Amino acid sequence: MGGLRSVMPSVEIINTGNELLDGRIANTNGQWMARRCSSKGLTVKRITVVGDSLEEISEALGEALGRGPDLILITGGLGPTPDDMTAEAIARALGRKLVLDRDALEMVRRSYGSGEIGPTREKMAWLPEGARPLENPVGVAPGILIEHGRTKVVALPGVPREMKAMFELHVEPLLEQLSRGLTRFEAYFLVYGVREADLAPTLEELRQAHPGVYIKTHPKVEEGRTYLELYVSTVASSSAEARSEMGKVIHKLSEAVSSLGGSLKPFKPGD
Amino acid sequence: MGGLRSVMPSVEIINTGNELLDGRIANTNGQWMARRCSSKGLTVKRITVVGDSLEEISEALGEALGRGPDLILITGGLGPTPDDMTAEAIARALGRKLVLDRDALEMVRRSYGSGEIGPTREKMAWLPEGARPLENPVGVAPGILIEHGRTKVVALPGVPREMKAMFELHVEPLLEQLSRGLTRFEAYFLVYGVREADLAPTLEELRQAHPGVYIKTHPKVEEGRTYLELYVSTVASSSAEARSEMGKVIHKLSEAVSSLGGSLKPFKPGD
Repeated sequence: MGGLRSVMPSVEIINTGNELLDGRIANTNGQWMARRCSSKGLTVKRITVVGDSLEEISEALGEALGRGPDLILITGGLGPTPDDMTAEAIARALGRKLVLDRDALEMVRRSYGSGEIGPTREKMAWLPEGARPLENPVGVAPGILIEHGRTKVVALPGVPREMKAMFELHVEPLLEQLSRGLTRFEAYFLVYGVREADLAPTLEELRQAHPGVYIKTHPKVEEGRTYLELYVSTVASSSAEARSEMGKVIHKLSEAVSSLGGSLKPFKPGD
Repeated sequence: MGGLRSVMPSVEIINTGNELLDGRIANTNGQWMARRCSSKGLTVKRITVVGDSLEEISEALGEALGRGPDLILITGGLGPTPDDMTAEAIARALGRKLVLDRDALEMVRRSYGSGEIGPTREKMAWLPEGARPLENPVGVAPGILIEHGRTKVVALPGVPREMKAMFELHVEPLLEQLSRGLTRFEAYFLVYGVREADLAPTLEELRQAHPGVYIKTHPKVEEGRTYLELYVSTVASSSAEARSEMGKVIHKLSEAVSSLGGSLKPFKPGD
């Protein structure tokens, strides 16, 4: 990140569902996907949540396509109900027709066993022209993969267990391709006895001197005691390379904190 | 929602922070704010997460302003460090200058007690011209309120306890004004023995007949058993009014589920 944010392959995430917009549920899909993408060194540039609306989804997708990321991940709206409108929204944003996809229809048919496929179920097999249906190993609705210029668009169901299973199967290989062996390396520290404002000039110097290393402070309070959580990361092709670059930064940080009269200790999030 | 989604006062939320984009933390601020807004009957139209970038924040704000919501809530990027860029991003999106605000400076000064206010701390008092600083009762950085045409823009810190305290103080009164006494009423049900695809036609009929009532199904699986979570809501000025409208829908839903051989029971989320 830091200077790397602009050169790494980029991803945008669009999560759909009124239940996200009215705050009934947390956008755990967005966070989970973002974590998986960024751990591979990709830069997630934006996460957009829109409602179950043809206009809102197609607008958000059109805007994302305009920014030209390498990958756009969409969740939700692939099911059989009329408020499931993601396939149609993708078709609209890409200026394509919806067509009944034979492979997708076969996937839906297999999921229902011997049952009849009426129009409501068949709906899940209508995909934007040129799309490839993605097998759903734990549910019914197939996912969608479609390319637009240099951007790959992948739509997955909003049910977290379906999204995650399909992400492993279909998205991980795309991330591998895009990241070309890069990984994000991270380190967390707690800083006591120094105010964020007083550490700011040092951080700015370090950012200028080490543009490949990302540094961010998060002020925290616990039982009335204020401290800083400090996050340092870099994207590299090996841990040796990452350590060499991050080690210098961490050493200088540690010295700066001492000289300001504070203390710094490593920390594992979740501790 | 449903038909109401388009006529109710609308809100957009922009949450900033690279830690949200790389999935290190969940966007709990976005969910919390969305819940508070929608419980007052307001429609949250979009939640956008962007990074600590002047361009990304000002672009996202410019796009949101273009959609003309009644209120835009922004979190994050108000602190003293150089990657805190929200005030400048607002100024850029609105075509205004940054000016040193005397009231904001006084707020910052009070927070630090007798300490010296150097340029790093003073930075938190530079606001877009025409903005009103919002008192931060539990932290240092003041919030920002600024109007652009018919849209009010409010920026709050990203630290959740500061955001929440300031939301109560400064945003709740705005929500009261916008909602004019409306409240969202909600009911949750669990539906067993009916597939989402089979209930879909009934839901569509109900949506057409009762555009003021919002209905959504969420397929769930627990210990291999599949069922539906069913959410019904409406926005009304009294519980009597809400009950009358929702009662009809719930009655018809219950009959439809029975006729499909399933069962429906009330449910409290969190149960």
